[in-house]
Amino acid sequence: MGYQEVLQAAKQRMERLTKPPSSLGHLEEVAVRLAAIQGRLKPELGPGAVVVAAADHGVVVEGVSAYPQEVTYQMVLNFLRGGAAINQLAQAADCRVYVLDVGVKGELPDHPQLLRRKVRPGTGNLARERAMSLDEAERALLAGQEAARLAITQGATVLAAGDMGIGNTTAAAALTAALLDLPSDAVVGRGTGIGEEGLRRKREAVARALSRLRPGMEPLAVAAEVGGLELLAIAGMYLEGYRQGLPLVLDGFPVSAGALLAYRLEPRLKDYLFAGHRSREPGHRYILEALGLRPLLDLDLALGEGTGAVLAMPLLRASARILHMATFAEAGVSDRT
Amino acid sequence: MGYQEVLQAAKQRMERLTKPPSSLGHLEEVAVRLAAIQGRLKPELGPGAVVVAAADHGVVVEGVSAYPQEVTYQMVLNFLRGGAAINQLAQAADCRVYVLDVGVKGELPDHPQLLRRKVRPGTGNLARERAMSLDEAERALLAGQEAARLAITQGATVLAAGDMGIGNTTAAAALTAALLDLPSDAVVGRGTGIGEEGLRRKREAVARALSRLRPGMEPLAVAAEVGGLELLAIAGMYLEGYRQGLPLVLDGFPVSAGALLAYRLEPRLKDYLFAGHRSREPGHRYILEALGLRPLLDLDLALGEGTGAVLAMPLLRASARILHMATFAEAGVSDRT
Repeated sequence: MGYQEVLQAAKQRMERLTKPPSSLGHLEEVAVRLAAIQGRLKPELGPGAVVVAAADHGVVVEGVSAYPQEVTYQMVLNFLRGGAAINQLAQAADCRVYVLDVGVKGELPDHPQLLRRKVRPGTGNLARERAMSLDEAERALLAGQEAARLAITQGATVLAAGDMGIGNTTAAAALTAALLDLPSDAVVGRGTGIGEEGLRRKREAVARALSRLRPGMEPLAVAAEVGGLELLAIAGMYLEGYRQGLPLVLDGFPVSAGALLAYRLEPRLKDYLFAGHRSREPGHRYILEALGLRPLLDLDLALGEGTGAVLAMPLLRASARILHMATFAEAGVSDRT
Repeated sequence: MGYQEVLQAAKQRMERLTKPPSSLGHLEEVAVRLAAIQGRLKPELGPGAVVVAAADHGVVVEGVSAYPQEVTYQMVLNFLRGGAAINQLAQAADCRVYVLDVGVKGELPDHPQLLRRKVRPGTGNLARERAMSLDEAERALLAGQEAARLAITQGATVLAAGDMGIGNTTAAAALTAALLDLPSDAVVGRGTGIGEEGLRRKREAVARALSRLRPGMEPLAVAAEVGGLELLAIAGMYLEGYRQGLPLVLDGFPVSAGALLAYRLEPRLKDYLFAGHRSREPGHRYILEALGLRPLLDLDLALGEGTGAVLAMPLLRASARILHMATFAEAGVSDRT
């Protein structure tokens, strides 16, 4: 049976389960979509994986971030040592953490959880030049696909992308504005916490990048112009996850911008996406609307790294279990009067 | 160190962890409260337990529910066979399910997960008479305490109550209105899905029960007047969980009404409460406001059985892990510029 047929059959089963109609709210939709994705009426999710794509951003010289650029490199080391939020939250969610370097400044040590696929040591400054060449964009996309394949080969049954890159909400804002035809001001937020002056510089940087785009450009050419390398890698991960038929969980703004690019390259991927949470970043809601997704969590998170996606994985697992419930007939329970 | 001292120390540690300030939103508050409850800076949660308190309600003769009364008994059997929503969701959340019969009509079979402590086979009709005597109310409360002790003895590190009882949102509405001094209309909702006429009857039943209350009545006397038996048991569970120092997770309307009663009997219990979710039932928000709680989930759930509490348990476990992150100093990561 195809996706739509299983979806309809799962909806019919949902109506007969021993609970008042619609009483599991949004999770009922999650459950039937998981059934359709897995092609079985009683879906099951095992271990998850989150691949944190890391890269640096030339635009940081414009003063768009609250943190210095070296934090990207330092945080990757923190991921590899297990000290970051994503490590701790993934541990609580039966989820394995991988790190993919597609553009971190500085050489990283070998590590079993690290995939070293540096395309270039950071993007060009999107406020003044193109972020990368089209060839570099394609290589970053391919690196993301390779990382997803690795995670799936090693047992992942549900896949999330994470992001690390000081300056990356600036690139995510430019990419989102370009793909959704929105003004700079609508999508630029405070990221990790910049002040008023930084916010003004960030809006200006995004507006300048957008001014270089021409109507009718291909999505990949747009992404090469505004970056970042990790956003391309994230798009690649989701494309590969879709091809292998896995449920795909979105995190916050940069990850969702990468997923939006993937969707533009492969619209059918939308059926496989779940929104982990609603970020505080203003641009995030436009992406969720464009993808028609309702977030599972709304907890004022704004951390990235894939944390909001990983926090939602247990909700996906629980949703899959709903379709394992007994029906009124199976349980001998009287239905509504 | 006492609760407040650990709370302050955990807040200070939270500020030094390798993440932007407040970037884990509401979960940061959950984390520091878990630290204070467990009396350690790096809290950890293991297995959970949900005790589903079940009882029948005399008020069903007024036509206040979409389901016939025998569904209470039938659903308890469904719980014991593993076919209900709470069984499936608990399985995905490392949570054990117990059932406590304090007032189900009909004799239930012996079962290792069932605690048989029937006080009486259902309450009196709260629209026309008192739901139970004060002695019966105390026995239901004690049964809840016993059930919590059993769950904790068998390894629970986080405790939730669940509810099963056709007609129990009527009793929960009466109890909530009485304890929070609200009008019947504010707290009566559609429960499992009654229509307009049923809603009118439900409001009328609650208003009649409230008219019998006298100013200055003790909370336990109020609960005896309006019921239900499982709401008393739920209050007892939370009281015992508090005494044993466990984090306590609330479910939807009936469970939260029971917790509100427990809070009136022991105000210090509030520090141990976490709101699993925000129910569709209108009375639920008043209880959460009165207890000063922000719900972890907001997914349009309206099922009961403890499902919303159990779905939130992985979020509590993940929150506990936040305080296991490295600090900026420990990880050698540069802080904000």
